[in-house]
Amino acid sequence: MSRPLIALAMGDPAGISPELTAKLIASERVAAAARLVVIGDRRILAAGARAAGIALDIETVVDTAIGPAEKPVLIDLGNLDPADVSIGAATPAGGRFAVENFTLAVRLAEAGKVAAVSYTPFNKKAMRFAHPGYDDEGRFVAELLRLNGRAREFNVLDTVWNARVTSHIPLKDVAASLSTEGILDEITLTMDCLKRSGIAVPRLLVAALNPHAGDGGSFGMEEIEIIGPAVEAAVAQGLDVAGPHPADTVFLAATKGGYHAVLTMFHDQGQIAMKLMGFERGVTMLGGLPFPVCTPAHGTAYDIAGKGVANPRASEEAVLLAARMAAAARL
Amino acid sequence: MSRPLIALAMGDPAGISPELTAKLIASERVAAAARLVVIGDRRILAAGARAAGIALDIETVVDTAIGPAEKPVLIDLGNLDPADVSIGAATPAGGRFAVENFTLAVRLAEAGKVAAVSYTPFNKKAMRFAHPGYDDEGRFVAELLRLNGRAREFNVLDTVWNARVTSHIPLKDVAASLSTEGILDEITLTMDCLKRSGIAVPRLLVAALNPHAGDGGSFGMEEIEIIGPAVEAAVAQGLDVAGPHPADTVFLAATKGGYHAVLTMFHDQGQIAMKLMGFERGVTMLGGLPFPVCTPAHGTAYDIAGKGVANPRASEEAVLLAARMAAAARL
Repeated sequence: MSRPLIALAMGDPAGISPELTAKLIASERVAAAARLVVIGDRRILAAGARAAGIALDIETVVDTAIGPAEKPVLIDLGNLDPADVSIGAATPAGGRFAVENFTLAVRLAEAGKVAAVSYTPFNKKAMRFAHPGYDDEGRFVAELLRLNGRAREFNVLDTVWNARVTSHIPLKDVAASLSTEGILDEITLTMDCLKRSGIAVPRLLVAALNPHAGDGGSFGMEEIEIIGPAVEAAVAQGLDVAGPHPADTVFLAATKGGYHAVLTMFHDQGQIAMKLMGFERGVTMLGGLPFPVCTPAHGTAYDIAGKGVANPRASEEAVLLAARMAAAARL
Repeated sequence: MSRPLIALAMGDPAGISPELTAKLIASERVAAAARLVVIGDRRILAAGARAAGIALDIETVVDTAIGPAEKPVLIDLGNLDPADVSIGAATPAGGRFAVENFTLAVRLAEAGKVAAVSYTPFNKKAMRFAHPGYDDEGRFVAELLRLNGRAREFNVLDTVWNARVTSHIPLKDVAASLSTEGILDEITLTMDCLKRSGIAVPRLLVAALNPHAGDGGSFGMEEIEIIGPAVEAAVAQGLDVAGPHPADTVFLAATKGGYHAVLTMFHDQGQIAMKLMGFERGVTMLGGLPFPVCTPAHGTAYDIAGKGVANPRASEEAVLLAARMAAAARL
């Protein structure tokens, strides 16, 4: 089976994205799993390759010609002059560059010319300069595709996925934001995404909300009244779902028990664990879209930009996950 | 300097406590740092030694004779017949045994006959059978000593301590339980305990409450209104305290930054991290008492009791921490 075509959109030019892109083009792990279609500006990419100490070897194509090449190809939009980039600064020019690259990547996937999308890190402030009202990548893609509903973010570390019921809200509002119906929705969306990533019979472990899962109602009733019933409803649908499991051992239990994913109730329940288990390998995946969209979980790292020291591991893992999901979708 | 005398109270007899006690008596790491005064029943201890495959080598003393021995000694209370123990079951007899052993250990420390107290795991249900109204070890000791206020629990992993502002309460009540004054109290108690454990100039990193520390007030105001002012007040007192730091990287930042402790806002913020970083090495320390009281962070492990497979590492670490703290207190 041929390796899937993955559109790789260059991210914020003021951070580590240019050097990460150059490292991905040179990566043997990536080459073994995917054919890259890089989208950006050759001059910015060349600067990244210089920073990374890599001899750039990539042919320029126009998007209608994508397909036959065995090696990575570049769609050179000629959309940013390195002279206009200030390393370490979020700018409108940088944001416009990233938005244009990402938009074309999504359009190529929508048209079926590539099988999945990946991108190196964006800077949210720069994105907002270029696209007022920009909220996050999931919403941006959903708007581009005129999808109802919203893409949801998953964190993926090695083979363990983490989805969360609530995300960027105050901790004090978390408990009131939980409902049996909402949790059941997240369970079914997670299971669906896992299947589309190639796992025939996904297994999911659901985290509790309260310490010691509420200890039988001693400190909190959400496990009994809200989370437990959602798990039971999922099981009644034939899904392999368990929980609620105490949050402080849910990732240990998932790894030991052969679960593919953990559903957490709030942001830091999952993020504390995922970052400790492998900060340098974490991938963010947007779920609920018609094609895979994956990016490293880390940010633009303005503080080390241009030095060539950025670790490309998470960016590689993002492309590899996108490729695995694309391959599974073809089956 | 002579090794400090540490009272080691045998915990719940139906779990792994008997075999852990036998392993501690035979431990070279423990012998190098402390002189153990074991409190319990020789018959129960002998059963633990058999399970652990250890030839028991311990002399029996009466408590008035504590002092000169170089090797571990046993105060044999003759308070439980192994025939009355059902492995894996919480019973009134088991709870009474643990309560008696622990009470004598605390009394010996109170009288200055030992420098610190350690104990193998208790079962809370059994403790409640034996001592109606039993809440937790900290409160039990505070009551025994007629202390005002309550002992507070710290989790210790290697050289990193974790204290928490709230503990066994519903997550929905956490935010409303925070106050600048309460957090400042926890900061000063933590710093005091660190000093008493031998760290001359302790450094403490305080966790935020909300995702991304509230992102400048975008999702939650507690960092700005409550936690930040507590940190500033501590700094104004000359303490080396920083934060609030986003909870999902606070332990990584503490390790990198050479901090001795992390103060978290709620139970699972710290427990998720501590259990992932070293479930098998974690120690629980009761702070705010006149002498150190340390125990392994894990529980009675009824499921593997009597099989000899229990890992004594956390129990060893508990004795070693108690010994370090006792030595520091003598300086």
